[in-house]
Amino acid sequence: MLGRLNHVAIAVKDAEKAAKIYGVGFNAEISAPVSLPDHGVITVFVTLPNTKIEFVQPLGETSPIAKFLERNADGGIHHVCYEVPDIIEARDRLIKEGARVLGDGTPKIGAHGKPVLFFHPKDFSGALVEIEQA
Amino acid sequence: MLGRLNHVAIAVKDAEKAAKIYGVGFNAEISAPVSLPDHGVITVFVTLPNTKIEFVQPLGETSPIAKFLERNADGGIHHVCYEVPDIIEARDRLIKEGARVLGDGTPKIGAHGKPVLFFHPKDFSGALVEIEQA
Repeated sequence: MLGRLNHVAIAVKDAEKAAKIYGVGFNAEISAPVSLPDHGVITVFVTLPNTKIEFVQPLGETSPIAKFLERNADGGIHHVCYEVPDIIEARDRLIKEGARVLGDGTPKIGAHGKPVLFFHPKDFSGALVEIEQA
Repeated sequence: MLGRLNHVAIAVKDAEKAAKIYGVGFNAEISAPVSLPDHGVITVFVTLPNTKIEFVQPLGETSPIAKFLERNADGGIHHVCYEVPDIIEARDRLIKEGARVLGDGTPKIGAHGKPVLFFHPKDFSGALVEIEQA
């Protein structure tokens, strides 16, 4: 039921600048920045052979990562995203085990165009967890 | 030059307890706890199809993750580990680009029996980065 690690998201004030060390230092493939106004972020991807690192930068005044960056001025690892074959089944099972879903529990269309949900970091050892329909 | 994401490490006070939601909620494969006295941690692995999550719990009084857990009582994502084909070449290239290596810069044998180095979070957007010889 637990699928691939889709990505690790790192919140930063400047996504292009943050990705630079991966490009020049690690010789990794870096995407162009993409603005996602509906999600309040600008993203830059770093491609690894088995997954990706997603730099997210606040866009607009109500960005969901703005508060995180107030607390973590240098940036920091914001969440991990796991793929699941059936997001409703995964949600219900996690809730049954005591995990708290964020929002109203209805999957939203995420940055990759697929349904996603977030779970409370306190129920995942301090790690904000996103699940994405595979 | 940038290889696989080997693992995401999540520091916690109780690794077995932290992994439990992945086992019962996600039906993921969870390893037995392994004590690594030389590294000052107990580890529990969660296996994903493309990488692994590594829960690390302090072991002994000088555990390298003790301070992190003082600041993050609920636990938190501690570091990401990237594989590199040549750790010396990767180190020198990252240093040339301004990243600060932790310790004296000599690779140590890590928890998986391979040479590893850590780089300063401030040079990687607040994310502590481990590189491991592939």
